[in-house]
Amino acid sequence: MSKIRLGVLGGGGDSLIGVLHRVASNMYDRYEITGGVFNPNYEENIKFAKHIGVNTDRVYVDFDTFIEEEIKKPEGERIEVVSILTPNFLHFPMAKKLLENGFNVICEKPMTTSYAEAKELETLQKKHNAIFAVTYTYTGYPMVRHMKHMIAEGEIGAVQKVDIQYYQGWINPVIHDPEVRKTVWRLDPKKAGISSCIGDIGTHAFQMVEYLTGQEVKSVLADLNNLYEDNTLDIDGTILVRFSDTFKGVLRASQIATGEENNLTVAIYGTKGAYKWEQENPNFLYHLKDDEPRRVIKPGNAYVSDVAADGTKLPGGHPEGIFDAMGNIYKGVAKALRGETAFKGEFPTMHEGVRGMLFIEKVVESHKNGNIWQSMENE
Amino acid sequence: MSKIRLGVLGGGGDSLIGVLHRVASNMYDRYEITGGVFNPNYEENIKFAKHIGVNTDRVYVDFDTFIEEEIKKPEGERIEVVSILTPNFLHFPMAKKLLENGFNVICEKPMTTSYAEAKELETLQKKHNAIFAVTYTYTGYPMVRHMKHMIAEGEIGAVQKVDIQYYQGWINPVIHDPEVRKTVWRLDPKKAGISSCIGDIGTHAFQMVEYLTGQEVKSVLADLNNLYEDNTLDIDGTILVRFSDTFKGVLRASQIATGEENNLTVAIYGTKGAYKWEQENPNFLYHLKDDEPRRVIKPGNAYVSDVAADGTKLPGGHPEGIFDAMGNIYKGVAKALRGETAFKGEFPTMHEGVRGMLFIEKVVESHKNGNIWQSMENE
Amino acid sequence: MSKIRLGVLGGGGDSLIGVLHRVASNMYDRYEITGGVFNPNYEENIKFAKHIGVNTDRVYVDFDTFIEEEIKKPEGERIEVVSILTPNFLHFPMAKKLLENGFNVICEKPMTTSYAEAKELETLQKKHNAIFAVTYTYTGYPMVRHMKHMIAEGEIGAVQKVDIQYYQGWINPVIHDPEVRKTVWRLDPKKAGISSCIGDIGTHAFQMVEYLTGQEVKSVLADLNNLYEDNTLDIDGTILVRFSDTFKGVLRASQIATGEENNLTVAIYGTKGAYKWEQENPNFLYHLKDDEPRRVIKPGNAYVSDVAADGTKLPGGHPEGIFDAMGNIYKGVAKALRGETAFKGEFPTMHEGVRGMLFIEKVVESHKNGNIWQSMENE
Amino acid sequence: MSKIRLGVLGGGGDSLIGVLHRVASNMYDRYEITGGVFNPNYEENIKFAKHIGVNTDRVYVDFDTFIEEEIKKPEGERIEVVSILTPNFLHFPMAKKLLENGFNVICEKPMTTSYAEAKELETLQKKHNAIFAVTYTYTGYPMVRHMKHMIAEGEIGAVQKVDIQYYQGWINPVIHDPEVRKTVWRLDPKKAGISSCIGDIGTHAFQMVEYLTGQEVKSVLADLNNLYEDNTLDIDGTILVRFSDTFKGVLRASQIATGEENNLTVAIYGTKGAYKWEQENPNFLYHLKDDEPRRVIKPGNAYVSDVAADGTKLPGGHPEGIFDAMGNIYKGVAKALRGETAFKGEFPTMHEGVRGMLFIEKVVESHKNGNIWQSMENE
Repeated sequence: MSKIRLGVLGGGGDSLIGVLHRVASNMYDRYEITGGVFNPNYEENIKFAKHIGVNTDRVYVDFDTFIEEEIKKPEGERIEVVSILTPNFLHFPMAKKLLENGFNVICEKPMTTSYAEAKELETLQKKHNAIFAVTYTYTGYPMVRHMKHMIAEGEIGAVQKVDIQYYQGWINPVIHDPEVRKTVWRLDPKKAGISSCIGDIGTHAFQMVEYLTGQEVKSVLADLNNLYEDNTLDIDGTILVRFSDTFKGVLRASQIATGEENNLTVAIYGTKGAYKWEQENPNFLYHLKDDEPRRVIKPGNAYVSDVAADGTKLPGGHPEGIFDAMGNIYKGVAKALRGETAFKGEFPTMHEGVRGMLFIEKVVESHKNGNIWQSMENE
Repeated sequence: MSKIRLGVLGGGGDSLIGVLHRVASNMYDRYEITGGVFNPNYEENIKFAKHIGVNTDRVYVDFDTFIEEEIKKPEGERIEVVSILTPNFLHFPMAKKLLENGFNVICEKPMTTSYAEAKELETLQKKHNAIFAVTYTYTGYPMVRHMKHMIAEGEIGAVQKVDIQYYQGWINPVIHDPEVRKTVWRLDPKKAGISSCIGDIGTHAFQMVEYLTGQEVKSVLADLNNLYEDNTLDIDGTILVRFSDTFKGVLRASQIATGEENNLTVAIYGTKGAYKWEQENPNFLYHLKDDEPRRVIKPGNAYVSDVAADGTKLPGGHPEGIFDAMGNIYKGVAKALRGETAFKGEFPTMHEGVRGMLFIEKVVESHKNGNIWQSMENE
Repeated sequence: MSKIRLGVLGGGGDSLIGVLHRVASNMYDRYEITGGVFNPNYEENIKFAKHIGVNTDRVYVDFDTFIEEEIKKPEGERIEVVSILTPNFLHFPMAKKLLENGFNVICEKPMTTSYAEAKELETLQKKHNAIFAVTYTYTGYPMVRHMKHMIAEGEIGAVQKVDIQYYQGWINPVIHDPEVRKTVWRLDPKKAGISSCIGDIGTHAFQMVEYLTGQEVKSVLADLNNLYEDNTLDIDGTILVRFSDTFKGVLRASQIATGEENNLTVAIYGTKGAYKWEQENPNFLYHLKDDEPRRVIKPGNAYVSDVAADGTKLPGGHPEGIFDAMGNIYKGVAKALRGETAFKGEFPTMHEGVRGMLFIEKVVESHKNGNIWQSMENE
Repeated sequence: MSKIRLGVLGGGGDSLIGVLHRVASNMYDRYEITGGVFNPNYEENIKFAKHIGVNTDRVYVDFDTFIEEEIKKPEGERIEVVSILTPNFLHFPMAKKLLENGFNVICEKPMTTSYAEAKELETLQKKHNAIFAVTYTYTGYPMVRHMKHMIAEGEIGAVQKVDIQYYQGWINPVIHDPEVRKTVWRLDPKKAGISSCIGDIGTHAFQMVEYLTGQEVKSVLADLNNLYEDNTLDIDGTILVRFSDTFKGVLRASQIATGEENNLTVAIYGTKGAYKWEQENPNFLYHLKDDEPRRVIKPGNAYVSDVAADGTKLPGGHPEGIFDAMGNIYKGVAKALRGETAFKGEFPTMHEGVRGMLFIEKVVESHKNGNIWQSMENE
């Protein structure tokens, strides 16, 4: 079984996202970084390639050259899948050109900067029948996959309520001084798009909810907070969500939850039970039932579902983390690329990328229109 | 210092609320249960009085007789304050008559069945200059008082976001069968009023938020859930709250959060820090700050505020609970009755009772009107 | 049903132990404090009696007068049971005289200052057929009782290992300065007896282990720590315990576990499962099994054992604490006094007091003899 | 900067330890697996090499050939460091020959099967001035390194007590049946050496204690448990440890702690503060002080020490785990190999391997001799 030839765009130097993808792609011995453009500066690009041990022959001067040269190569040598780790506004043009040229894609989130772009990519992907993953990392955790699986199996009955939170506090130290907040790229609409908080982390929460329940949100009502008039982007928001007239929920996201680090917390309540999970303690999943002691599900144990077992490398009590979660997503993509049997939901797809962009737009619309319901159907 | 003469209405037999108030009133040796009407059945009433050691001379056949006989007594013998532990619909008429006859009142929540009744009581209370407590028990916890005090002191700066949850699952086992749910008194508008979930527990969350921040909610937008068409009362709801255009929050309450017991959870985020607290772990208060390790505040330690110290009987590591929280509320009322210096917020007042009733009405209105903002001002 | 006439020795003024016993005795409406000697100073004694609402006719000038006067009273009026809350060295003479005069006794721990005294009391108790409780408070927690019950039922199979810890840090701030440590009464052999740490808290751990397993420790091997040569009493110790050649365990106690408050932690491992519990989080009991998710048992739920249910006043999620634990011990004594059916282990008995004193002596002996095994049999 | 040429012995196929070392070695882009002997079966060996992308030219038929061929290569091509992941009894002969032939070594624990072997390796290592790491993985966690660093800095004053636990329950399901327990290799002295529990996990705890305190245990007193007479190796034990006459501690290890997974828990108490940490929640470090709220230290935050920051790849709230811990150990070895400046304790050394073997022998000796003190000095 030969390794999958992986190309990487961006992620050079000290890039955190670069490390995450590099380590993750390597975890199951399925990928080899064959080439890419790690850095816009060619000298840095080459230096970095050497540093990480990539043959510099296929480290290109820019993205266009990457495409140009790679498509010349015979199929058995050509890079098969490309990870896009560049700044957000480049995701769309790069993904578009990659799809047009027959590459499979692993794209960091947000997939694009607008819903229209996302739809365009979706059309292309279908046309080219490409494999396309959007790296919503948190769905790579084995306990998240276990939840999804058990919910699909009916373990908690019909889901009747969801409550999901994604709280960070990182913007608090830089938001209160008018001079300082001007300098934050996340708050610059030219760089960050129409939303800061919802666009960056609210989408994670949204994707998680649809991923876990296997159902689609039908409408949203949002109240966002910019905190200061001269700040034009949301840095906090609460979003009412409806799956149906009787299945509702709430999604809460914030960058001004002072002192919070990366507090993504999920609660899914069904007619027969519930699941609760916190990203900062990812190896503890709580299963609640009426009039029974709650159970603490942990990965690596014989009692977990096959999909959770498949995403865990060591026995119970050996904590794996976010690198391992991303590793599972890469593994899922590898299975797809090689046509292997996979569990449902082993990587977030184009569809999830499209839904995420629609969500951001509808949320901002709801808020701008005075906190009214916006449908997410018929788009 | 003579003990305060306490009358009790309701709470006889195996009543849980009866035990709670009885134990609590006794905790600081400030009260003596002098008389009351514990039970509508006179025989049971007397039997119960003997059981708990109350002189049967002042155990009355009914509430009217209670008033009639007690007001005949000289001031130094007359019952000074009366605890109302009867079914909800009796709170208003009893409180009204007690106030009219010069008694001070400790009233279980909800204080009344409507905002109009609440306002009427407020007018009476002011007229008679009575002490009136509404037993929102959770504000009796020392860590809650510490939070309130530290927030007032500016410890976390200006509050910029609140998030409060009150989740229970008790209605889940009885809601899904149409025959069974018909029999639940909480779901019968004649007995429970206009709301089940918000009326019962949402108000606790609301009171907690205003208590902790020392600020008033200006408007609310609610999405409630009845789950079934033939169920006319809410059993779940999410409520967006606004204190100002830039200070917002969310309040979540549910009786269908399957497997949850009494999960009241609070997060208050300010410009300089945050507090987080969970009722089921009441002796652990988390203090968060930007770029500092979070601190775990525990009662009974030398470092806590005076108000927290005053509400704790034993040294650190000796867990006190909900009986002790209620004991603190009784202690606060005792101080007020005896004109002693007290900390701010030692017992929830008439004002909080009134606000609670307004909240319920505005929430239900918001929902009925299509999830739109309802003002809580100028009422 | 008339209330039990309770006498109290000590516990006046701001005494913490006084509050604990007073509130506890009142919790189930079973006791009435009928008289006592709360304070060696008669004026204070009377003042305190008035404060807590006790008829001063039966508040005596001293212990001897208490006995003298009470035994004159007819049986239906005489105080039935006496709580001894005085300094440790008075426990023995008071308990002795009370037993000799036909009173039942509730005695704070340590029951005596030596094993010999303890044995003497035991003989007297048997002779007079008295009810005698030693208030090892922690066994009053419903989750502790549930553990004991389930272990007796065989839920975790044969117990094969126990590990119990009682860590405090309170002596750390006063131990390191030679002048300061001289002033600590706990470190004065004249006041504290032969041990500080083991005598004060190690015994709690020991009693807990025998209580939970229903088995007796056969031998001990101890290594104690005084930290400074001029400090003659232990302030820390680890004790190996053996129930049999193959059922062993360890008991750890410390007063120099800096920053610890009252960290009593229990783990009982059996062939089929295990229980873990922490006193500072008393409403969470963990039940472990091979290859099953661990369960979180909480009081107030329908699934708990009858003995746990009997010791819980409110539904799940309403945290009760240490006052409630002591209330359960008083309730157990009340059942015994009134000849009612009780669960096993509703209050710690004379036997447990005797065992505790033997434990202290054997531990100190083991340490002094060079950390060798000391038998606890045939005494 | 060229990558370090890494050889690997063992770890082929589905080997868990193989995955751990492979992923870890790759995490910081410092190593390239250049060759090795992954499997005793040559066909499997080659197949595996292809699978993980190693050039088969340097995949050797056996260990002797590995040495023979590699030493022929010029220095700039020769494998620089070799990871030994083979069964325990092979560690010594392989490490010995590697050292004799000038290789640096990364060796899984236990380093050898006896203290004598360990000393022999130590002599060789000194002679050849080789870098030698023993992969006590848990010291790779950033919070463990932070603890060590802060303790060395005097943050908690003089350490006065240590308490460390390593509890597993995996042997419980296989120990109680005489037929089944015969088949467990861990219980076969021929394969497992003189100890099961202490040898496998007790050493981890021992190394952790010396690592954190920076001090050496002077003597030990152990009580071990085999549970059954026909089982000749310990599966549980408690070990009293002494650093000095007044600095003592306890080390507890078990494989019959039913339901425990990999519960390594540390508490280090000093005159000015304490640290507590649990391996299964590795990103939460508790810092206790007298009369101050305890602090929760988490990696990835600006407030942590440089050594912790160096061992964390992502910002706060992005949980890293045991693979990342091992990655840090590999990183430490890389720094040493390349002569870079490193923090103290970036990888466990030969000295720690030697101490570990001595510990096992002294513990077993203490137990066999009747639970008496055994010196660990002057060896």
